[in-house]
Amino acid sequence: MPKRQAPSPWAPAAQRGQQRQIKRDAVLATAAQLFNERGFHATSLDDIAARLNVSKPTLYYYVKNKDEILIECVRNGLQMMTDGIEEKRKAGGKAIDQLIACIRIYTGIVTLDFGMCVIRISDDEMPAVNRAELRRLKSGIDMAFRRIITEGIAEGSFRPCDPKMAAFAVAGALGWIGRWYENGGDYNPEQIATQYIELLLNGILQPPTPSPG
Amino acid sequence: MPKRQAPSPWAPAAQRGQQRQIKRDAVLATAAQLFNERGFHATSLDDIAARLNVSKPTLYYYVKNKDEILIECVRNGLQMMTDGIEEKRKAGGKAIDQLIACIRIYTGIVTLDFGMCVIRISDDEMPAVNRAELRRLKSGIDMAFRRIITEGIAEGSFRPCDPKMAAFAVAGALGWIGRWYENGGDYNPEQIATQYIELLLNGILQPPTPSPG
Repeated sequence: MPKRQAPSPWAPAAQRGQQRQIKRDAVLATAAQLFNERGFHATSLDDIAARLNVSKPTLYYYVKNKDEILIECVRNGLQMMTDGIEEKRKAGGKAIDQLIACIRIYTGIVTLDFGMCVIRISDDEMPAVNRAELRRLKSGIDMAFRRIITEGIAEGSFRPCDPKMAAFAVAGALGWIGRWYENGGDYNPEQIATQYIELLLNGILQPPTPSPG
Repeated sequence: MPKRQAPSPWAPAAQRGQQRQIKRDAVLATAAQLFNERGFHATSLDDIAARLNVSKPTLYYYVKNKDEILIECVRNGLQMMTDGIEEKRKAGGKAIDQLIACIRIYTGIVTLDFGMCVIRISDDEMPAVNRAELRRLKSGIDMAFRRIITEGIAEGSFRPCDPKMAAFAVAGALGWIGRWYENGGDYNPEQIATQYIELLLNGILQPPTPSPG
């Protein structure tokens, strides 16, 4: 009869890896929240540790330093945008419907902590070694918007315009939401998206009333 | 007969004051240029001094430190926006003409060095003691846009919408220009403004063709 093993007080390796990932995600989520509340520079590792009820040395088991946290927050936000927009693009359909769906997705993400980090933290604050990668992700999102606008012009539903300018105008308007948005403000993200869709697609001007007769 | 005075090698006080101002302005203009080229953090006082062909100690005759330079650059940009928009507002006229004029002014300023600093340097990077003042200037610009939009709705030329949302959408689209604009790109600021006016006022969608008959 085999000897009965005493149960180990350590979880199996696979489970430990999973727990580590869950805890690392919590570190990043809390950091993103603090960066958006106080600014990146004003947030210390001590602040992050305090909000998580752990000591600063504990954080180092999950992340190397504040710069790594920053990059991961921005990368997460950019990845959410990329995935969300890619999913809508793949679903296909008319350019106008794709654009509307992407405006909704993008508005939703820039009002979440990781997405807000993308908007609020400038390239200048990013470690130089990571800038190229993050710029590539940003450029991919820009290109997706340009493709939708190019298609809409080809379909005849969008006004003839330079898709690059139109994509910049849309991205600028939507990105700014990540600066001024506050939880519990006048509108929720869904309501903001609805107003922006109306403004960006139809413009500020009242259409001319058709002359009678 | 009065004794003839030997000419002083120092200029009269008033003239010295004026020269100091000219030199201080040059320090700020050069700093703004470098901040936009390399980022605020990556720019040192040595870099600014080098581009001006002076020593770092010389700079301290004109400015206290890098933070003071930063604040002055952003304040200059915000003041240019405030003055430009105020002038157009005072000129009066229909809301649509005021909005078009303000879009042109704003686009022109965010493509200049001081204006670009307003857009590229985040509140987070600003010394805490100056944030309230700069936020007040920003809020004044936002309010001017909201007033124009409110008037346009009252005149019946703008679609009924929340002026706050529309002002944010316009300011976001225009502000973003200060991020991506580069001298010598595809379009000059005037051409960019023309395209943005078309997009923001009339929207991306092609107007429906009137049914025949």
